[in-house]
Amino acid sequence: MTTTPLLVSTPADLRSTTACLLDGARSRAAAGHGPSLGLVPTMGGLHEGHASLARTARGDNDVVVASIFVNPLQFGDPADLERYPRTLDDDVRLLGSCGVDVVFAPSVGDMYPGGEPLVRVGAGRMGEILEGASRPGHFDGMLTVVSKLLNLAMPGAAAEYRAYFGQKDAQQLALIRRMVLDLNVPVRIEGVPIVRDDDGLALSSRNRFLGAEDHRAALVLSRVLRSVRERVEHGRPLDLDAARAEIAAEERVDLDYLEAVDPSSFTPLTGDALPVVGPALVVIAARVGAVRLIDNTVIQAGSARPTH
Amino acid sequence: MTTTPLLVSTPADLRSTTACLLDGARSRAAAGHGPSLGLVPTMGGLHEGHASLARTARGDNDVVVASIFVNPLQFGDPADLERYPRTLDDDVRLLGSCGVDVVFAPSVGDMYPGGEPLVRVGAGRMGEILEGASRPGHFDGMLTVVSKLLNLAMPGAAAEYRAYFGQKDAQQLALIRRMVLDLNVPVRIEGVPIVRDDDGLALSSRNRFLGAEDHRAALVLSRVLRSVRERVEHGRPLDLDAARAEIAAEERVDLDYLEAVDPSSFTPLTGDALPVVGPALVVIAARVGAVRLIDNTVIQAGSARPTH
Repeated sequence: MTTTPLLVSTPADLRSTTACLLDGARSRAAAGHGPSLGLVPTMGGLHEGHASLARTARGDNDVVVASIFVNPLQFGDPADLERYPRTLDDDVRLLGSCGVDVVFAPSVGDMYPGGEPLVRVGAGRMGEILEGASRPGHFDGMLTVVSKLLNLAMPGAAAEYRAYFGQKDAQQLALIRRMVLDLNVPVRIEGVPIVRDDDGLALSSRNRFLGAEDHRAALVLSRVLRSVRERVEHGRPLDLDAARAEIAAEERVDLDYLEAVDPSSFTPLTGDALPVVGPALVVIAARVGAVRLIDNTVIQAGSARPTH
Repeated sequence: MTTTPLLVSTPADLRSTTACLLDGARSRAAAGHGPSLGLVPTMGGLHEGHASLARTARGDNDVVVASIFVNPLQFGDPADLERYPRTLDDDVRLLGSCGVDVVFAPSVGDMYPGGEPLVRVGAGRMGEILEGASRPGHFDGMLTVVSKLLNLAMPGAAAEYRAYFGQKDAQQLALIRRMVLDLNVPVRIEGVPIVRDDDGLALSSRNRFLGAEDHRAALVLSRVLRSVRERVEHGRPLDLDAARAEIAAEERVDLDYLEAVDPSSFTPLTGDALPVVGPALVVIAARVGAVRLIDNTVIQAGSARPTH
């Protein structure tokens, strides 16, 4: 269901466009059911992982809005912000091929008309560990812009509102769920599974910066996660040190962290918490050449299907 | 128009009750006009200042919700939290006499089911000066709970949403306006003028703790603000030192601060910024006996009506 999405850049145009589409959907909806709106926030540089978010949103909702905004607030390193891919035409085409109705692509001035926000959302201690330790302020900036986008697209007259985020950015997703809980934001957060290349590499807009050798080397991340998951599924204890050693053996890969964490609080599980009882996340971050990559997997003890 | 408000304590009951009232209002509204909802957040201990908020909201909106919640997050001092007045029955009666439809009086568990919020709203540097300097963390806690209340009462199906705050808590009001701007919260913030006793004392739920002598001494605050305002209205320069000296002469009053500030950023105006050109706020805080009081006035140069 390829469409040509409406492209809007100001908050006022976003509101009037979605209000109009929701009115249309309401008139077609069964009595007593409000129409539904799905929001897919992105920073552009779109790939099949984002397409999966958009298609999921399309399947769930009457009206689908995707946003494309490279948020300066969540980049600590100006060089990283500078080289973040900007591919608006391709992005709009991809979102159209997924049936997205509206693409909201504001300028920095549209999003921050009063300059840098004075009041912000703060991630607290959950934003200071793991990814947060490597990228100070990143999660505060991310939560602040997600809060803004959720508010800007808030359907004034719809009963249902959902927003879609990838499970690849697992700590981001956990923090957004926590924000929605802690601040009572009237939206339902949907986490969408990681999309991988055929060779296992988790899709990322940063993958385009990997040379062929680095791409091959980066496969150790998904390979190690898979073997950790399978060990645990077969009832064996976690052995994160062995996993770390396997990554250390790949000389092009510089491991930042590999940890098992509680999926909702992101507290690292250590000592007595291993072996795993309930479901946990194993999260990984590493630098491959000049590119920082992250990946993760859910692990659950004894969940392997019996083999005969 | 005295009513008996519906008293609800859980977020779910708040949502279903307001949705039902809004549906009723919608069926009576002119086509093309959504109904409107006004929210009056309070911490209870209500007086005529709160009644003024509620009556203003009643005049503007189809449905009026008042909340009563003493928010532990914004009290630095447990003793202050402990002795904050709790007068629910009287409060509900007063709100009823103002025509309020729904009183939302949640428990701490209703508001923070996940325990202390990990993700919070942060007031930044604007929350660290003046009141914020005396009460570290106060404004972060206040913005976090106001954000929650705004989200909880958010009218899913109403075109208009307004929230009412008193101008007496001027820095709080400025921070809430800034939060709504910075985070694009879909609500309109209405500031309601200070209500004063006949003798000039700004109404506060803390006034009940003033003995007769302290009450008399506290009048210096509004008296000084009035004379500062009148000087400026007659085109004379601000003389904050003279105002501070007048307060220092009142031995029962211990001045915390007296400053002229920019009304939106709360940056103190000093040196070249005086005399005042545009409108400014003069804000004051002082301890009278064991009670901390605040007050403020808008000043505008040359705004005095000509006298004949």
